[in-house]
Amino acid sequence: MAKTKLIIDTDPGIDDAMAILMAFHSPEVEIIGLTTIFGNVPTSLATHNALHLLEVIGREDVPVAQGCTMSLKNVPKVRIADFVHGKDGLGNTNPSPPKRKALDLSAKEFLLKMINTFPGEVTVVALGPLTNIAMAIRADPMFAKNVKQIVVLGGAFFVNGNVNPASEANILGDPEAADIVFTSGADILVVGINITHQVVMTDDHLKQLGQSESAFAKYVYEISHFYFDYHHEAYDMKGVYLHDPTALAAAVDPLLFTFAEGVVRVQVDGISKGMTIFNNTGKRWGEVTEWCNKPSVKVAVTVDANQITDMLMERLLTDVK
Amino acid sequence: MAKTKLIIDTDPGIDDAMAILMAFHSPEVEIIGLTTIFGNVPTSLATHNALHLLEVIGREDVPVAQGCTMSLKNVPKVRIADFVHGKDGLGNTNPSPPKRKALDLSAKEFLLKMINTFPGEVTVVALGPLTNIAMAIRADPMFAKNVKQIVVLGGAFFVNGNVNPASEANILGDPEAADIVFTSGADILVVGINITHQVVMTDDHLKQLGQSESAFAKYVYEISHFYFDYHHEAYDMKGVYLHDPTALAAAVDPLLFTFAEGVVRVQVDGISKGMTIFNNTGKRWGEVTEWCNKPSVKVAVTVDANQITDMLMERLLTDVK
Repeated sequence: MAKTKLIIDTDPGIDDAMAILMAFHSPEVEIIGLTTIFGNVPTSLATHNALHLLEVIGREDVPVAQGCTMSLKNVPKVRIADFVHGKDGLGNTNPSPPKRKALDLSAKEFLLKMINTFPGEVTVVALGPLTNIAMAIRADPMFAKNVKQIVVLGGAFFVNGNVNPASEANILGDPEAADIVFTSGADILVVGINITHQVVMTDDHLKQLGQSESAFAKYVYEISHFYFDYHHEAYDMKGVYLHDPTALAAAVDPLLFTFAEGVVRVQVDGISKGMTIFNNTGKRWGEVTEWCNKPSVKVAVTVDANQITDMLMERLLTDVK
Repeated sequence: MAKTKLIIDTDPGIDDAMAILMAFHSPEVEIIGLTTIFGNVPTSLATHNALHLLEVIGREDVPVAQGCTMSLKNVPKVRIADFVHGKDGLGNTNPSPPKRKALDLSAKEFLLKMINTFPGEVTVVALGPLTNIAMAIRADPMFAKNVKQIVVLGGAFFVNGNVNPASEANILGDPEAADIVFTSGADILVVGINITHQVVMTDDHLKQLGQSESAFAKYVYEISHFYFDYHHEAYDMKGVYLHDPTALAAAVDPLLFTFAEGVVRVQVDGISKGMTIFNNTGKRWGEVTEWCNKPSVKVAVTVDANQITDMLMERLLTDVK
């Protein structure tokens, strides 16, 4: 069976790093590039970290394309989650400067080029705000049709958000972009924090990584202390949420989830800016709503959480696949 | 034990009528007045119907005070749910004009007068948009302290709304008013459609009412066909949701519910206008949110649904209590 070609749009980010390492030990997929975005870190640092991670992995043949530095509305003050991931995005481990540079193509251009070169073959896993993807969709009406699938890590469906009670960080990072992507008609899987808050790497798992001889495991162990400290403090839990690895798992094996299909719209301002509202009712509305006559997406509603943690651990602990 | 003094703020409305009839057969409470509001019908018709219902009940000693005809923002076009309750609000049964008139006091003035006369003794059951209550709260800072409790029928907590996927009809009717009430510091129980969509009167229950000799049962039977037809069509169900009787039941016996405590805010514009967002997480937010440093309310999260249907049926089928 042909491997699915994967582009990971990412803002590394500690759990982004976990997902990227996991992806390179996943025989089901072939990573054809990383594109970068702001979120856990500013975009330039995301590019820096993406290049660094590919050095750690030993895959300097994989291209990195730098993405947007601001949301579609060009709000100059971007919300950066350095209190979750550290100033350098990798747990204040101060990674050495990468030897390579990013492509001359922007993330949008790279996405368009790859999707046009391999129509129907490329899945995009979006681990940050959706600005790059929305730019590609706006630039080329065929993008939504020709992308194989977009797996979105973002949103909070029928649960509170993680930035505030209304909104989840990735969607809040660019609500307009998220609304464009969700209503684009592409084949979309959405993995929100209603799902990822069920998938946990425990303090004991981390210890296990630290005791391993695997380079991937050791690396994750080193960068993850800051992320664990944040979770201990913010959530009173002995572990961390595996947001990005869970989204990667959805691209690798969607059967680990069940999905409900329906229209998702995003609130773009006010106190619930960034909120994802999923039409999940069979009601025949008496009025025309903002959810009418829009394409559906598939929203993850259940997850085999232990399987995903096990999959991540296994793929981090095994040096070669 | 002293009966709780009750003011019902209402927009009758078929399920309002059920709740009002039920209230007058509830020995736990003493109805000291009805105040009226737009919603299921315009306010003038709500007043008309409130007076009519008190004639049907034979309690023309109970005063009716007419409320606001527009939301706080004075939006002249009020959304009226005549497709749910009929043009006359009572299932197109064409009730005869009431013999009495409403008080000269407005709903706001009546609420303030009663709460000041009986501080700590009066519970307000709000079955429509919260404009009257918000007006009273704004007019007198002591109102929120002196009202015994406000039971709000409204909102959709972690489920879709009933006007559109984001919002429930009563809150959408006046989102600004709802936000004022929820953050007023009063003792507030909120019964949303996550609860009331569990409490159903079936087609068989309706037949039982039609076969009874009780005047209340016969009356509800007559007015309810339109409401049942709407539910058959909109929800594909053989029954109707008991929104207003469920809120009344919360005033009569809150032990039929469990409640979670937290801050509720209301989105006032955009596609999710009218959405109720409840901070129900133990997370320590990294940033100051719009939910910080606001008073809490009690949001119903479970309900003994069958008990409430039974309570309503029993109190409609019994002629005198």
